[in-house]
Amino acid sequence: MTDNKLGVAIVGAGYWGPNLLRNFTACAKTTVRWLCDLDEPRARKVAAGFPATRVSASLDEVLADDNVSAVAVATPVGTHAALAMRALDAGKHVLVEKPLARTVAEGKALVAFAAKRGLTLMCDHTFCYTGVVRKMRDLIHAGDVGDVLYFDSVRINLGLFQSDVNVMWDLAPHDLSILDFILPSSMKPVAVSAQGSDVMKTGYESVAYLSLHFANGAIAHVHASWLSPVKVRMTLIGGTRRMLVWDDMDPSEKLKVYDKGVDLREADREARAQVLVSYRTGDMWAPTIDGQEALGRMVSEFATAIEERRAPETDGEAGLQVLRALAAADESIRRGGLRIPLDASL
Amino acid sequence: MTDNKLGVAIVGAGYWGPNLLRNFTACAKTTVRWLCDLDEPRARKVAAGFPATRVSASLDEVLADDNVSAVAVATPVGTHAALAMRALDAGKHVLVEKPLARTVAEGKALVAFAAKRGLTLMCDHTFCYTGVVRKMRDLIHAGDVGDVLYFDSVRINLGLFQSDVNVMWDLAPHDLSILDFILPSSMKPVAVSAQGSDVMKTGYESVAYLSLHFANGAIAHVHASWLSPVKVRMTLIGGTRRMLVWDDMDPSEKLKVYDKGVDLREADREARAQVLVSYRTGDMWAPTIDGQEALGRMVSEFATAIEERRAPETDGEAGLQVLRALAAADESIRRGGLRIPLDASL
Amino acid sequence: MTDNKLGVAIVGAGYWGPNLLRNFTACAKTTVRWLCDLDEPRARKVAAGFPATRVSASLDEVLADDNVSAVAVATPVGTHAALAMRALDAGKHVLVEKPLARTVAEGKALVAFAAKRGLTLMCDHTFCYTGVVRKMRDLIHAGDVGDVLYFDSVRINLGLFQSDVNVMWDLAPHDLSILDFILPSSMKPVAVSAQGSDVMKTGYESVAYLSLHFANGAIAHVHASWLSPVKVRMTLIGGTRRMLVWDDMDPSEKLKVYDKGVDLREADREARAQVLVSYRTGDMWAPTIDGQEALGRMVSEFATAIEERRAPETDGEAGLQVLRALAAADESIRRGGLRIPLDASL
Amino acid sequence: MTDNKLGVAIVGAGYWGPNLLRNFTACAKTTVRWLCDLDEPRARKVAAGFPATRVSASLDEVLADDNVSAVAVATPVGTHAALAMRALDAGKHVLVEKPLARTVAEGKALVAFAAKRGLTLMCDHTFCYTGVVRKMRDLIHAGDVGDVLYFDSVRINLGLFQSDVNVMWDLAPHDLSILDFILPSSMKPVAVSAQGSDVMKTGYESVAYLSLHFANGAIAHVHASWLSPVKVRMTLIGGTRRMLVWDDMDPSEKLKVYDKGVDLREADREARAQVLVSYRTGDMWAPTIDGQEALGRMVSEFATAIEERRAPETDGEAGLQVLRALAAADESIRRGGLRIPLDASL
Repeated sequence: MTDNKLGVAIVGAGYWGPNLLRNFTACAKTTVRWLCDLDEPRARKVAAGFPATRVSASLDEVLADDNVSAVAVATPVGTHAALAMRALDAGKHVLVEKPLARTVAEGKALVAFAAKRGLTLMCDHTFCYTGVVRKMRDLIHAGDVGDVLYFDSVRINLGLFQSDVNVMWDLAPHDLSILDFILPSSMKPVAVSAQGSDVMKTGYESVAYLSLHFANGAIAHVHASWLSPVKVRMTLIGGTRRMLVWDDMDPSEKLKVYDKGVDLREADREARAQVLVSYRTGDMWAPTIDGQEALGRMVSEFATAIEERRAPETDGEAGLQVLRALAAADESIRRGGLRIPLDASL
Repeated sequence: MTDNKLGVAIVGAGYWGPNLLRNFTACAKTTVRWLCDLDEPRARKVAAGFPATRVSASLDEVLADDNVSAVAVATPVGTHAALAMRALDAGKHVLVEKPLARTVAEGKALVAFAAKRGLTLMCDHTFCYTGVVRKMRDLIHAGDVGDVLYFDSVRINLGLFQSDVNVMWDLAPHDLSILDFILPSSMKPVAVSAQGSDVMKTGYESVAYLSLHFANGAIAHVHASWLSPVKVRMTLIGGTRRMLVWDDMDPSEKLKVYDKGVDLREADREARAQVLVSYRTGDMWAPTIDGQEALGRMVSEFATAIEERRAPETDGEAGLQVLRALAAADESIRRGGLRIPLDASL
Repeated sequence: MTDNKLGVAIVGAGYWGPNLLRNFTACAKTTVRWLCDLDEPRARKVAAGFPATRVSASLDEVLADDNVSAVAVATPVGTHAALAMRALDAGKHVLVEKPLARTVAEGKALVAFAAKRGLTLMCDHTFCYTGVVRKMRDLIHAGDVGDVLYFDSVRINLGLFQSDVNVMWDLAPHDLSILDFILPSSMKPVAVSAQGSDVMKTGYESVAYLSLHFANGAIAHVHASWLSPVKVRMTLIGGTRRMLVWDDMDPSEKLKVYDKGVDLREADREARAQVLVSYRTGDMWAPTIDGQEALGRMVSEFATAIEERRAPETDGEAGLQVLRALAAADESIRRGGLRIPLDASL
Repeated sequence: MTDNKLGVAIVGAGYWGPNLLRNFTACAKTTVRWLCDLDEPRARKVAAGFPATRVSASLDEVLADDNVSAVAVATPVGTHAALAMRALDAGKHVLVEKPLARTVAEGKALVAFAAKRGLTLMCDHTFCYTGVVRKMRDLIHAGDVGDVLYFDSVRINLGLFQSDVNVMWDLAPHDLSILDFILPSSMKPVAVSAQGSDVMKTGYESVAYLSLHFANGAIAHVHASWLSPVKVRMTLIGGTRRMLVWDDMDPSEKLKVYDKGVDLREADREARAQVLVSYRTGDMWAPTIDGQEALGRMVSEFATAIEERRAPETDGEAGLQVLRALAAADESIRRGGLRIPLDASL
């Protein structure tokens, strides 16, 4: 019954793998033939309710299966590039968890090799498939926000500390991929600066502040932390025509659109006093957000892009953009916060 | 009936002056003899309900009054140093609005001159006199928070743009003075870095991100902005024993104390997944906050410090500390975000 | 300089009197000639900053002053009727705090006597002069809400217990007057039922639930309590076309308008499950609310109504409507919650 | 491999059945042998991922299976009694969704018959198995709340309208069962009154207000509605020593404990004014809530009670108590809100 479906193998049965398994299974276009993990008992446990899915500890065995057309890599970051490369080399389309790889060089090699082999390479920038991010992109692309002057994102919670990357690599890829997705193509970052604190002395920063600098002088800033007692997921976007507030922790009104741009008129003393005590001006509008599960939309996009032989919305190049920003931010942290130019051609 | 009261003159009838007038009048230890402003009709209007207070456009006239023992300066930042110096030179104790002056050199001159003349110099760091900041200081000084690892403050709203300073000079002095007030004296910042964006092309940054770096590796970060559609006043403090969240916009629970420090144990995969979906761990406690008006407490401290011939809680040196950080942050912005050492002895 | 202004006397220097004094003084059309209270020292203290206002403990002295054209009564409820009657008898226009009187008979006598003497009688239903209530009335009267099917108001906080009335008489007049003000004139309550609990054994109920019943079957329900640890001021209005949520404790978005009426379609099992987990459907809109102080608008309406010889927006009859509902609710509580018909002609 | 496990059959594959299936399957003490629904294709779809579970449209077939020791009834309310009776008659222990039955007579017959046959009869009052309700019960039973003076619950959302019961029967059983569970056994309701509005003319009330009256004069009030644009789940409990606020929509602080009881001291005028503007007094404490899934704990209690031959925490009698209150509330609505005595011995 799955003859016409895209055969998928999932590599990695850890935190994210089960979500991919569930969504690729639910997708009408795909069937999951393998769940592959070095910890085979764990993979067996995860795949228990999925009779169509076999389990293996051997990637070679999985890649040798002609019924597998695509591989989804959901393993620790350091292994992304090698595993994805093996899958591409076996002629499989590849989906990789964010971030695409550990270094820009690795990412570039993946993009180049996929292009050479004519295979689809996609990065799972899940947030780009949420209703709220797509609504923000629609508002910006339609001109409703005007020129984007301000982007600030807070993505903080109480750890757990990861053992292989710092908090910036753990959390900031979400914001970097969202930015790449929602901003007009004319608006690309030109430099990056960052500050990080390894105050817990673990070898990895647990608090990081990252700034993307744009040609128009705007800064897009990301605050990532594992040290916050409360979970905050709040993004502000200020435009010349309207302003957006996305609070992902708000169950009912995730996105608020303020009918107010930035006002430059010089105010007299009375007016200033008045504004200082007012909370906002202009009406606010909270549009209905499409509640479709992002991951379902993402796996569908992967299958459709392969089917239609086109680049997926969040392709390897998008993943590479995120890597470039992270690598530059790493360098900025090492150099005391210095602004590092970002050259998309590198 | 005001014979034994400290005679005060207020210079500046703009945004803040009326608040000082009201509070110095209400204070049992002080009487306001003069309200001085170049815009005399404005001063007359502000002083209308205060029969004990005379109005003048001439600072000389005010300083010549022997019944005036102290002068409160609430004028634009650029004029602070000159006006305060004239008042000190006339033998008056001086209270200056934040920031103390426009440059470190000016601030140092004021501190030195006040010391030489044996006069009280105080900077109006109003937030240090709020119940919530004093409660945070008490918790930190009592050891309930443990070592402070993390300080993050968001102080943003929709303009109005000021015509003489950037947003960092407008808003960050609050956080810098609070930090100086609540941290243990052993914890002093050693460097500053900052990013700023003058995306509105007004000549002054309307968004700024400032980081104070401490010897233990901790960063205290301040996000100041005039471009946010919503007013946010949120400060996080993470310690090894407890964590604090101060939301100044929350009318009923301004301060929340989380019975949870940072946890470093390595967690297995299941636990990690579980924590990622939990919002916080540990009990939370919202202590009652003393609701006394901060400004009332501040003017009382000014009068008491003069009376007791002791340094006020937020003395000239505290104001100078803020200036040093602001000046270093200015330099960091000019130099692309570079970390600038902060030497308190400078 | 106040020659053309309406001379006002305020009776009662307690909780509300100072607010009236401040607003009648600020109003361009009125001047406060007297503040009258049996506790003359208290009145003297309250009137300290108001040089145009004399103080007296004698209502006779005040009423004898020909410069007094209007009297505002802000005394305990039990004294409203007698004081207002004396003022009307002296030929003065009268403003009375809510509720208009202690009994329907007293209220009817006031309305009749004011009409006979051709004097303005107004009840200070302050909430009817707030921007948010006026916005709700505008939306309902313009048909944007459709037919009103549902009104629920929660008005609760932690006492203080009043010594002369129960919680229903203390808090429900706000909701009853708002309802009378915002509903279309075709929609009048036909019956009242209520439950009350004097669980503290003070002789007055400290918790009360009041229902107004309408001809179309709708219920308007008010929950009034002095026993809640948190202050809640939340009103829901459900219409066939749109729904409103007024949260008076929300500083930035007091009024939310939901683009959703009640939906009657029978849903299949899947749809039902889906709706049960969704928080709301349809866009939400938070209109800007006119922030003008309600009391300022109220005193201006009083003066203007007198000047234009027309009924004020919240006239004696509106106050009487509130009394009728309260009296019926009292009877319902005595009779175990029985529905008591409400006859406006009584 | 399930030899020692309690064999369970679930009747009803609608909204709730799948949740029972998932939880009984996950429970170490139980195995689900059958999922029974007249709509067999639907049952087949629901049971797809559960290989141990067979599907049938025939209750007789299911009851004839000796491996089935217990039956869980999750069907429309009107069928509860007949299905549960058939299961008891076949010698099976029975779990019934709330409410236990459609009438008190039915409920009493079930309780009596289960007792006679020595079988366990349990009502699925799910909320009694949540961490937050158990925490509230612990606080009350430990005396931390003092005497309970006030209970108010708001349980409202936008439909969907059910086709077989009114909103009171749909939503109020939650509150009635919670009350029965958390209050001390000495505090039983003595009367019920209710108001309901069928403003949509569907034959069933879509808004209802229900009051339970206690011997000490306290009222426990429930507001149930399908007409609210927003989903509210808020319960207030006021005691002489402490007060509780349970906001089930708050993801991080579901339960707040206020260190403040009701205060009866007469306050002077100044104090009254001050309290009116303060939001709460006393510290607040938000205890960590056990996040274990309520349904998991409920099915475990069912299995354990059968095993230990003891009454489950929410037994048939608890279900009957809820029915008695609902029936009395129905009668009160019919009689215009009259208070109806509640006799537990009926």
